[in-house]
Amino acid sequence: MIRFTNDYSEGCHPLILDAMARANLEGNPGYSTDPHSIHAHELIRAACQCPDADVHILVSGTQTNTTAISGFLRPWQAVISADTGHICVHETGAIEASGHKCIPCPNMDGKLTPDAIRAAYAAHNCVHMVQPAMVYISETTELGTMYTFEELTALRAVCDELDLLLYIDGARMGSALATGIITLPQIAQVADAFYIGATKNGALFGEALVLCNDRLKQDFRFNIKQRGGLMAKGWMLAVQFEVLFENDLFVPLGQHANEMAVRLRDGIAALGYSFASNSETNQQFPILPDTVIAALESDFDFEPQEKADDTHTIIRLVTSWATRPESVEAFLSALGEVTRAQEISA
Amino acid sequence: MIRFTNDYSEGCHPLILDAMARANLEGNPGYSTDPHSIHAHELIRAACQCPDADVHILVSGTQTNTTAISGFLRPWQAVISADTGHICVHETGAIEASGHKCIPCPNMDGKLTPDAIRAAYAAHNCVHMVQPAMVYISETTELGTMYTFEELTALRAVCDELDLLLYIDGARMGSALATGIITLPQIAQVADAFYIGATKNGALFGEALVLCNDRLKQDFRFNIKQRGGLMAKGWMLAVQFEVLFENDLFVPLGQHANEMAVRLRDGIAALGYSFASNSETNQQFPILPDTVIAALESDFDFEPQEKADDTHTIIRLVTSWATRPESVEAFLSALGEVTRAQEISA
Amino acid sequence: MIRFTNDYSEGCHPLILDAMARANLEGNPGYSTDPHSIHAHELIRAACQCPDADVHILVSGTQTNTTAISGFLRPWQAVISADTGHICVHETGAIEASGHKCIPCPNMDGKLTPDAIRAAYAAHNCVHMVQPAMVYISETTELGTMYTFEELTALRAVCDELDLLLYIDGARMGSALATGIITLPQIAQVADAFYIGATKNGALFGEALVLCNDRLKQDFRFNIKQRGGLMAKGWMLAVQFEVLFENDLFVPLGQHANEMAVRLRDGIAALGYSFASNSETNQQFPILPDTVIAALESDFDFEPQEKADDTHTIIRLVTSWATRPESVEAFLSALGEVTRAQEISA
Amino acid sequence: MIRFTNDYSEGCHPLILDAMARANLEGNPGYSTDPHSIHAHELIRAACQCPDADVHILVSGTQTNTTAISGFLRPWQAVISADTGHICVHETGAIEASGHKCIPCPNMDGKLTPDAIRAAYAAHNCVHMVQPAMVYISETTELGTMYTFEELTALRAVCDELDLLLYIDGARMGSALATGIITLPQIAQVADAFYIGATKNGALFGEALVLCNDRLKQDFRFNIKQRGGLMAKGWMLAVQFEVLFENDLFVPLGQHANEMAVRLRDGIAALGYSFASNSETNQQFPILPDTVIAALESDFDFEPQEKADDTHTIIRLVTSWATRPESVEAFLSALGEVTRAQEISA
Repeated sequence: MIRFTNDYSEGCHPLILDAMARANLEGNPGYSTDPHSIHAHELIRAACQCPDADVHILVSGTQTNTTAISGFLRPWQAVISADTGHICVHETGAIEASGHKCIPCPNMDGKLTPDAIRAAYAAHNCVHMVQPAMVYISETTELGTMYTFEELTALRAVCDELDLLLYIDGARMGSALATGIITLPQIAQVADAFYIGATKNGALFGEALVLCNDRLKQDFRFNIKQRGGLMAKGWMLAVQFEVLFENDLFVPLGQHANEMAVRLRDGIAALGYSFASNSETNQQFPILPDTVIAALESDFDFEPQEKADDTHTIIRLVTSWATRPESVEAFLSALGEVTRAQEISA
Repeated sequence: MIRFTNDYSEGCHPLILDAMARANLEGNPGYSTDPHSIHAHELIRAACQCPDADVHILVSGTQTNTTAISGFLRPWQAVISADTGHICVHETGAIEASGHKCIPCPNMDGKLTPDAIRAAYAAHNCVHMVQPAMVYISETTELGTMYTFEELTALRAVCDELDLLLYIDGARMGSALATGIITLPQIAQVADAFYIGATKNGALFGEALVLCNDRLKQDFRFNIKQRGGLMAKGWMLAVQFEVLFENDLFVPLGQHANEMAVRLRDGIAALGYSFASNSETNQQFPILPDTVIAALESDFDFEPQEKADDTHTIIRLVTSWATRPESVEAFLSALGEVTRAQEISA
Repeated sequence: MIRFTNDYSEGCHPLILDAMARANLEGNPGYSTDPHSIHAHELIRAACQCPDADVHILVSGTQTNTTAISGFLRPWQAVISADTGHICVHETGAIEASGHKCIPCPNMDGKLTPDAIRAAYAAHNCVHMVQPAMVYISETTELGTMYTFEELTALRAVCDELDLLLYIDGARMGSALATGIITLPQIAQVADAFYIGATKNGALFGEALVLCNDRLKQDFRFNIKQRGGLMAKGWMLAVQFEVLFENDLFVPLGQHANEMAVRLRDGIAALGYSFASNSETNQQFPILPDTVIAALESDFDFEPQEKADDTHTIIRLVTSWATRPESVEAFLSALGEVTRAQEISA
Repeated sequence: MIRFTNDYSEGCHPLILDAMARANLEGNPGYSTDPHSIHAHELIRAACQCPDADVHILVSGTQTNTTAISGFLRPWQAVISADTGHICVHETGAIEASGHKCIPCPNMDGKLTPDAIRAAYAAHNCVHMVQPAMVYISETTELGTMYTFEELTALRAVCDELDLLLYIDGARMGSALATGIITLPQIAQVADAFYIGATKNGALFGEALVLCNDRLKQDFRFNIKQRGGLMAKGWMLAVQFEVLFENDLFVPLGQHANEMAVRLRDGIAALGYSFASNSETNQQFPILPDTVIAALESDFDFEPQEKADDTHTIIRLVTSWATRPESVEAFLSALGEVTRAQEISA
């Protein structure tokens, strides 16, 4: 079975495992107060060209988003998100469980637009409604699409105008950076806070939350601890970021994932299929006939997203730093065969 | 200034004030354990033909909805509502503040349909999403429309099929019952829990929450207390329900409100204007030219809802048990004059 | 049955009922934006000599405490209280339900001391513990005792030193002011926020929350709404405070309650009984033999607090603006008889 | 610097690192639905002789406690704990942040007694107080002491009598089991739920929550996800438990830790020092003169707990599977020297 189900079905890059083994018996202070953590934070600040940022390394994406958002907002404040946003859909109501409404906006190819933010803000105009105080976006988006720096700058301008915080979920930041469309310093320039996801880009576990806005920094470690995210062995998360950022490994891992994805995309397009979103990143959403999907399922694992019409379904193909070219070739070859077989029988 | 802004700009029906004055110095045990409370609960059970129901009288609508919903759901469960639902829009995120997501569904004339519930349920199909466990509807709806008993029965069937609780917000239950479209026993028959709103139908303050489903009853008073709703002088809320239900006052007060509203509606329609919803109840939503609205604002107070087009706005006109026929006539007469004046000048 | 169970078994002072009747059909804007509310806020600010304070009138004590405390604290912050504090014991965990720990400290005659605050603060010294950010006290205390202005000033000094907010629960502020030990301007001078309780001092329902510290004011109405405390007919709460503060009624009502309590106290003491606390206010805590208590229970209603020893129990006697001198005499006379009868039989 | 600060300053046992390396590139389904997870759950059920238990592997202790407790309780319910309990003190209010009060009871050598539970239960006797619904204990306790099976059985009996759940925090279950005082099947027999902590006993990260009581099982994965604990690479946590329980490694690692601790204890006692608690497990609490502590601090790292008197302090010494005998000898030898030097100079 060849998997394109997600970008976390493998553990970590071998260099990371080596580094973890080397650090394993060092003996380190707990709770991210150790030299590895201090060093990893410094490397991340440098990569972001944001020398004053506070960096906190947490262990999972939902935890990071909840800790950040609940730490930033007052009780009556809400976060604006695309209706496809991870926090709106796929975190089992974690944001609401922390007391805050997610205001869903219609997405444009997975993205939030300045106009959608303005409309959501304008619709919340009195004390009987939640107070929008924050914008949540994902880079790359849940549909594999990307905000350009221009688009991010436009969102930042709206946030400044309306006094909203801008928070960027970087679960797939590796893939985003690897496109060359955006850089970490640009992300740090527009965001009040964001996280750099490593779980989906080479690490075993680990998400580095970067707080750029001074106002968000105070007492944040209390918040992490309360939300269950202050890890006793935080240094074992930090070691992973040391490898990724000291060896300039983070972006190349994303590049490999993207290359595999683009190869899939181009091969699938060459067979005449179309896509539900326009992605250059490690998630591709082809629309395939249900009969084709059925024929592929014995050898390949992937997730159906939603029905496109009565006989077609959008599927999601995800690649990672660990995806092998042979797997991509096998998929394209199988898809070609199935396609031709069905054309003949039709 | 003549007001059609809401149905709570007057205090309470004079009979209620009299009863409160009579009970004022009686001396009663606190926290709704007094004879008035016991009697009021009994009257409400009888009116609902639901002898086993638990009744709790609370003091405001948002408090009642939050106490009920947060008391019924487990942490990861969510409530399905029309996107126009009061809890979705106008309670400043109180449901989310209690930890639960409101799942908004497209409304049909302010109403939730079985298909919308099914779609929302189907879309939440895994552990990464909240678990829909409850349906919230309002009778009358936020647009003044109503569910018929047939429609309620259909919603109940969907809830049974999908194992969802059905909760009915009766902030304007007086107006609903007054139409004759629905009765309290029918409401009690379909709902797991509902409340009978008196604040908007003759009382000073007070909402009677009726728990029909045995599973929801246990320890509910703890929940009320924790949410700040267990009133020291609960008997002064109960006295109001005694008057409303002992004297058969509740429905007639709603009838007056509806009569005033229908008179407004028919008069406005006769002048050629259309409406944003099809209401027989105490909220009417005419669509008027902005120039007409501007001309009315010096003498009449009402709330704009939203723009219908570039030159027209939907306004909300609300009547109550206290609305005087002269006020209605004055509005219609003024609207007639303004309309004619603008036709001539056009 | 003569009641000394609490100070809320009657409705409201007749002057308040009159004022409510007069205002009943005025027609007023909702949600405390009306002229009565504006006027009541102004009267309260004047009484406190605190012209810049924000005043919000809520409907119950638990609601007021929860709204205030949850609105003032960040998620990881906690409130320091005497272990007898109302929020620690008698609010069904409402503060914890809003996400915040109450740190209980040993009380001295119902009071929190500077040393106890310092000790609680010092014991919470790392990121693995909640961060104390606020001190909660009640004036009068839950044991009927009082903080003098000197004691309050000392608490304020500790709060300033340790960067803690000082919040005063004034559920029985009427009784406190009536002693002459403290004044409203003094309360306003030391507190960051406090509330003036009227439910237990002449009003039907109503607690006036006074925000003195500018930092606590922003967006507070959102918080009230979310917690279910923004009343549609807020003006009917305001009318009650207009009567209490315009007619200089608030303190005299407390004086009557205190007089009745002191008469009880002195009469009980004259019979040779001692007390669990040293109170000049409307709550008295005599220690009586269980046999005496048993003999009184057929004619008098009051609450046992806790066992003093195997044969004695501390009871609570509460008086109010509505307590009649005859009731006090009847109690003292009955207690005298029972006491003598038991002495003879012993 | 030799550390006795905690039992998590090393990574994981080398066998675990090997197993993680072997599994690293396997490709596994996410979110603990993989074969390793299924196998680890089976091994744990077998070790507990509890074939019907549900097992969930989470990533940290605070997360596990919060997820369990908030998943088990209704909003108004509270958890009874010793005042030294980890949830009461060292989780930054995580339980309160989930909405529930921790009721602290006086501890006996770190332990909760049936009498203390009964007293806490009896003190919460009305709707104005939280409802105790659960007992939380730690095995080993926060003071290194242990409940015997007899003591646990007595606690279970009280819980049955008062309808309370019994939950056991097993952050240091390895050390507990290694004493021979208790077994996993005995733990599973008395507890409604408990967790087996591996982070402090050989694993990198990982706590296995065992749900014995059927009533607690339903939908629990939703709860884990909402609390941020459903790890994408859950299989990498499971692999660690496979090693610990397949190779019978878990108890021997605890035995080593205990041996080192007992050697420390006996050596310290032989020098004439006493202890704050009576521990046979991997935490020891000697009481040392401040001058001695000062002399040790340059070479040894450990945590002061609290002042014993003006010139003595209780310190905590913690050992683990990774503590080397040479470190223990070095400490005892240094302590001996310092002690003798101070005796001479005295």
